[in-house]
Amino acid sequence: MHVEVVENVLKLNDDVARRNRAVLHEAGVFTIDLLGGPGCGKTTLVERTLAALRAELRIAVIVGDLATARDAQRIARHCPHVVQVNTGKGCHLEAHQVRQAMERIDLHQTDLLIIENVGNLVCPVGFDLGQDVKVGMFSTTEGADKPAKYPYMVHESDVVLLNKTDLLPYVPFDVNQFDTDVRRLRPDATVLRCSAYLNKLDSWLDWLRARAAAPAEISAPYTKANPR
Amino acid sequence: MHVEVVENVLKLNDDVARRNRAVLHEAGVFTIDLLGGPGCGKTTLVERTLAALRAELRIAVIVGDLATARDAQRIARHCPHVVQVNTGKGCHLEAHQVRQAMERIDLHQTDLLIIENVGNLVCPVGFDLGQDVKVGMFSTTEGADKPAKYPYMVHESDVVLLNKTDLLPYVPFDVNQFDTDVRRLRPDATVLRCSAYLNKLDSWLDWLRARAAAPAEISAPYTKANPR
Repeated sequence: MHVEVVENVLKLNDDVARRNRAVLHEAGVFTIDLLGGPGCGKTTLVERTLAALRAELRIAVIVGDLATARDAQRIARHCPHVVQVNTGKGCHLEAHQVRQAMERIDLHQTDLLIIENVGNLVCPVGFDLGQDVKVGMFSTTEGADKPAKYPYMVHESDVVLLNKTDLLPYVPFDVNQFDTDVRRLRPDATVLRCSAYLNKLDSWLDWLRARAAAPAEISAPYTKANPR
Repeated sequence: MHVEVVENVLKLNDDVARRNRAVLHEAGVFTIDLLGGPGCGKTTLVERTLAALRAELRIAVIVGDLATARDAQRIARHCPHVVQVNTGKGCHLEAHQVRQAMERIDLHQTDLLIIENVGNLVCPVGFDLGQDVKVGMFSTTEGADKPAKYPYMVHESDVVLLNKTDLLPYVPFDVNQFDTDVRRLRPDATVLRCSAYLNKLDSWLDWLRARAAAPAEISAPYTKANPR
């Protein structure tokens, strides 16, 4: 009974996500769903990305949090096009919430939409939002065992980001174990390292530039990243 | 429809949790449910706690993870009484999983049961497992805004632990903001700081000794911590 209802919820979500994706593609928007645990550095990454790319790309942001508008307030310093979604006790964003937020954004004046999901390595994974690419973010302070312990997130992530490389000298972190586990779970993932705090983001920015500036290529990677 | 089913699931869970609690109290076991985000240091805390207290207290551990037995393997080096629960895609432990794990532990030879929940600041909060006390764990590398952004976990935590104090010199973390938000959300919480990695755990161990060694007092704090 419970499983059946949950499947219905997922199917309903996927229907809305497909509509979101069609609307976003029609407007020429490249969309990423940014996933990661609490405090892995998602908001700092978004802030630095906006500061670095706002002269090149028109960027909008949707931010999911249980409570507060703190993330949106931080992001609004760099970008006027930010919508905060408060999920209450909800542990992930769903496609209908993204659809409502999209209505508050001028998509035809947007090249890149970043959706910062609720901090959670489990629940957001199964919910398609209409994105082109899921980006799964880890940080060195969480320990190198996190990909193996949260395999579904890695499996669904087209890009895996390892953040907080500036703290590697101060924490126990086996880079080889991390890389090996990621490769095993998702051999074709793009794996990038960064320190959002220290603004060391070159490979991430290069990847984002290449993908967001090539709207004609959107449909091919989307098919690959979202086979359903 | 969806909400109704979820409420039934919660009610069913609470019934099992009540039975768990009765069984644990009858055996004189003091039980904590340890909650925190991925990589905040829960397993390291459990390892160090076992090393410090195993001569004083008979301790058993139940560990929840989506996948792998890595945490249980780490813990088993310090304690033979450890049961790993793999939740698959499940984002939290439920009372029936704890009940099954309890069957593999000699409760009458146990003073303290530590349940290490799945790394997640959202979903485990609403599920009573039969514990006496919920311990909510944060770490300095996650940023000081986490209590405000995950208020339900703080509200339900009898003890709030701030871990990784050894990294305070290397990360931006506003200790006052953290303390203020915790106090606002849960004025009567016991707030403790520690560095599990550096084995700086005195206040945590003192608190645990006092509570676990006083089984006669279990029923009073339990009523307070679990009003339902």
